[in-house]
Amino acid sequence: MGLEQYIRDIQDYPKPGIVFKDITPLLANPQAMQDCLKLLLNSLKDKNIDVVVGAESRGFFFATLLAYELKAGFVPVRKPNKLPFTTFSAEYELEYGTDTLEIHTDAITPGDRVVVHDDVLATGGTAAAVCKLVEKLGGEIVQCNFLMELSFLNGRKKLSKYDVFAPLIY
Amino acid sequence: MGLEQYIRDIQDYPKPGIVFKDITPLLANPQAMQDCLKLLLNSLKDKNIDVVVGAESRGFFFATLLAYELKAGFVPVRKPNKLPFTTFSAEYELEYGTDTLEIHTDAITPGDRVVVHDDVLATGGTAAAVCKLVEKLGGEIVQCNFLMELSFLNGRKKLSKYDVFAPLIY
Repeated sequence: MGLEQYIRDIQDYPKPGIVFKDITPLLANPQAMQDCLKLLLNSLKDKNIDVVVGAESRGFFFATLLAYELKAGFVPVRKPNKLPFTTFSAEYELEYGTDTLEIHTDAITPGDRVVVHDDVLATGGTAAAVCKLVEKLGGEIVQCNFLMELSFLNGRKKLSKYDVFAPLIY
Repeated sequence: MGLEQYIRDIQDYPKPGIVFKDITPLLANPQAMQDCLKLLLNSLKDKNIDVVVGAESRGFFFATLLAYELKAGFVPVRKPNKLPFTTFSAEYELEYGTDTLEIHTDAITPGDRVVVHDDVLATGGTAAAVCKLVEKLGGEIVQCNFLMELSFLNGRKKLSKYDVFAPLIY
């Protein structure tokens, strides 16, 4: 499909030595967005998804589209104090220190079949924290999907319990 | 359409005395999301939109859906240092102090017909800053739309140059 051509390498972002994969050229191209969405949807055929959970912020882009096409609910998982209702939170490790994600306590109904989406699978810490929140609410993780996987960071290891899918692998 | 029933009032969020309009029940309901999107799309019929610009973060939810259904590009406007490529920035006033938004310098092609989307029209400061960024890049603002308008805050005044639409008005 040639989706790679819509991913732009940005040198030394967010800090020296890192090559950041910029998805904004893909978002700017309607055909590329549709092609990418189609690949994600194909991997979810007949899976009876109730809810798509997107991780703040870049996970929101395709999580809403997935929810829309699957006729599922959309649930945002956000940084601390961004969700207005009562929340559960999960900590996860960063290179230095920790970060926290939150979900509304009423976001998932026990037994809901859930897709967890983020833009990039890197170390897997964010997605693992999101899965923990979903499972705390009684949701069943059917798949964790991403636009791309940075396979050299071994993120799948942290998500070994789950079905993991990404149309782009680096 | 009864979309109001999917908007939840949260007392004293983000601070005492404020009643926050929580859209997560709407996002969680596939039919409500579709109905809401349909209302936004109806207001854009035959407008030949090239780009939908969404304001971080809650503006992303429906901006991607609008772009998808309009077969337009999607452009995120974000908080400082969140966009990896070169950016233009615009300051806007808050109740106390100022905040800044950024757009990629290559996000809009001069002459592009643009919709600016955010979830809530409050004082209009955010949307006005987004419009400034779009116009700096040569884009033509066809409409500013929102899921809801808090009309008592007179946000339309700051956007008087533009077509403004919101399916829900409080």
